[in-house]
Amino acid sequence: MNACELGLPMAVPEEGLPSRVRVHEVGARDGLQNEKATVPAQVKAEFIRRLAATGLTTIEATSFVHPKWVPQLADAEQLFPAVAHLPVELPVLVPNERGLDRALALGARRVAVFASATESFAKANLNRTLDEALTMFEPVVARAKEADVHVRGYLSMCFGDPWEGPVPVLQVVKVCRALLDMGCDELSLGDTIGVATPGQVSALLGALTAAGVPVSALGVHFHDTYGQALSNTLTALRHGVTTVDASAGGLGGCPYAKSATGNLATEDLVWMLRGLGIDTGVDLGRLVATSVWMAAHLGRPSPSRTVRALAHQDSAGSDADSHKDQ
Amino acid sequence: MNACELGLPMAVPEEGLPSRVRVHEVGARDGLQNEKATVPAQVKAEFIRRLAATGLTTIEATSFVHPKWVPQLADAEQLFPAVAHLPVELPVLVPNERGLDRALALGARRVAVFASATESFAKANLNRTLDEALTMFEPVVARAKEADVHVRGYLSMCFGDPWEGPVPVLQVVKVCRALLDMGCDELSLGDTIGVATPGQVSALLGALTAAGVPVSALGVHFHDTYGQALSNTLTALRHGVTTVDASAGGLGGCPYAKSATGNLATEDLVWMLRGLGIDTGVDLGRLVATSVWMAAHLGRPSPSRTVRALAHQDSAGSDADSHKDQ
Repeated sequence: MNACELGLPMAVPEEGLPSRVRVHEVGARDGLQNEKATVPAQVKAEFIRRLAATGLTTIEATSFVHPKWVPQLADAEQLFPAVAHLPVELPVLVPNERGLDRALALGARRVAVFASATESFAKANLNRTLDEALTMFEPVVARAKEADVHVRGYLSMCFGDPWEGPVPVLQVVKVCRALLDMGCDELSLGDTIGVATPGQVSALLGALTAAGVPVSALGVHFHDTYGQALSNTLTALRHGVTTVDASAGGLGGCPYAKSATGNLATEDLVWMLRGLGIDTGVDLGRLVATSVWMAAHLGRPSPSRTVRALAHQDSAGSDADSHKDQ
Repeated sequence: MNACELGLPMAVPEEGLPSRVRVHEVGARDGLQNEKATVPAQVKAEFIRRLAATGLTTIEATSFVHPKWVPQLADAEQLFPAVAHLPVELPVLVPNERGLDRALALGARRVAVFASATESFAKANLNRTLDEALTMFEPVVARAKEADVHVRGYLSMCFGDPWEGPVPVLQVVKVCRALLDMGCDELSLGDTIGVATPGQVSALLGALTAAGVPVSALGVHFHDTYGQALSNTLTALRHGVTTVDASAGGLGGCPYAKSATGNLATEDLVWMLRGLGIDTGVDLGRLVATSVWMAAHLGRPSPSRTVRALAHQDSAGSDADSHKDQ
């Protein structure tokens, strides 16, 4: 046996990177809500249990939106109590005060509101102007903080928007400021359509830092639509970001490019972080097994490169002699 | 229309990166040689013609190995003359003096030998010890240089080896030195099984620089088996590397992990480089169209994220209203 066969990269640190990263796992929520088929609540609960057993510490569980908008997550009241006992953080999404009421009634300790960096997406996703959306979130955040509940602010379309094109950095900074000023504890900067490249990531993180936003309050949420998620993540790590969103097995397509890949796969992220000697606490083998299990339930292979490589590692090296070339 | 719909990333440079990169396109050789089906010579020639029309300047055409070893490329004598007139560099692989004779007879101006950083792979790929392989290459390189032909030295398994595990940096440096000393003009550092992460890339490039190897003589050849190719490429760019191998559409699986992804897709690379404002001269739209054409011929979709996203861009934004969430 060797490192390759064991499915673990060699650890060689790189200068200027953090020693530990917290993976914010979104597969059970962001992943499954973008599946055509609705997964039964007991399967979701088992998925979250298995994810927790891999060492992940933050597992987004569900969303308390109106079932009309996201029927895939209409079972939030059934699911949350089934996993609430797990020794992990279980953030849930709340779009408004009604959603917050539902979450608080079940004892949620972490909630997230979801804003947009652009007017077009605020209109499409929330049917509101940006200002109207922020106004809607104000009492949600205020009441969550009164209840001593941690609040994450998602910010979609931080780099590009399918209607507006490239998004000006100062516009993103402005919405970030507004979310932090109303009391959000952390932000998740989303590249919802996956178009960003490392220069954009540096420009935004530099502007946020210059505007006085502490990097410890920032997470990144990259989509792999154009294969850029991991390079962008590496760039964010160089800027000191230590919270990275990812989805087990790469679950969740991007709604704006039907056949394209969606979320950064947690396994691909953990492979890189492990290779860099950055601690995540995640057992990669268990995580791959969990994604293989979920993929079997969904009836199609995981889009994660690492899952596909390791799920077939039994055949590694077996046909080496048939290839006589570089 | 906006940047996203046009399929082009916004250009935002990142400090410390080169302004221009030469893409060494390997799809027609490294990609097609790993296909189960043998592609007819006239289709290969059309593929290379289309690749040349995208602005790519270096397109590896074929390999003059014995047809017994790589039957997919047994048509080298038919293919090379069909594309030799194109205004691009057309490197070809030559395993030994017999291969060199065949290449020179057809007027090849660039050849490549393929060495290994490990004993195990030298044995598997060339049925020789490392020293025996280098000895075999010596007269090949010497005679090529006498004919004023540019010589590239491929170096496989520079980071990990399926039999030996992690590969010591100094072992790689030693083989690099040997290849340069015998007259190779450039080297291509291959992560043949795709296990490398950025710290390993930095460690190897740092050691090569410390050993007096000019970075201008170095190219990188990453595989996307674990999704790491683009992060590793970004890291190599930071070290001043300006030659990057990639395969149009991500053609070519890794022989050591049957269902895994192989070469870095040229489109995913060009998306990142374009986003970084780094000039490659490549027209991304034409390249995607070429890969879609080739994928149709091979009867399966391209594994490139960018190809999959852009090949379906007509549907971008069309179902935005059906999603009410981050």
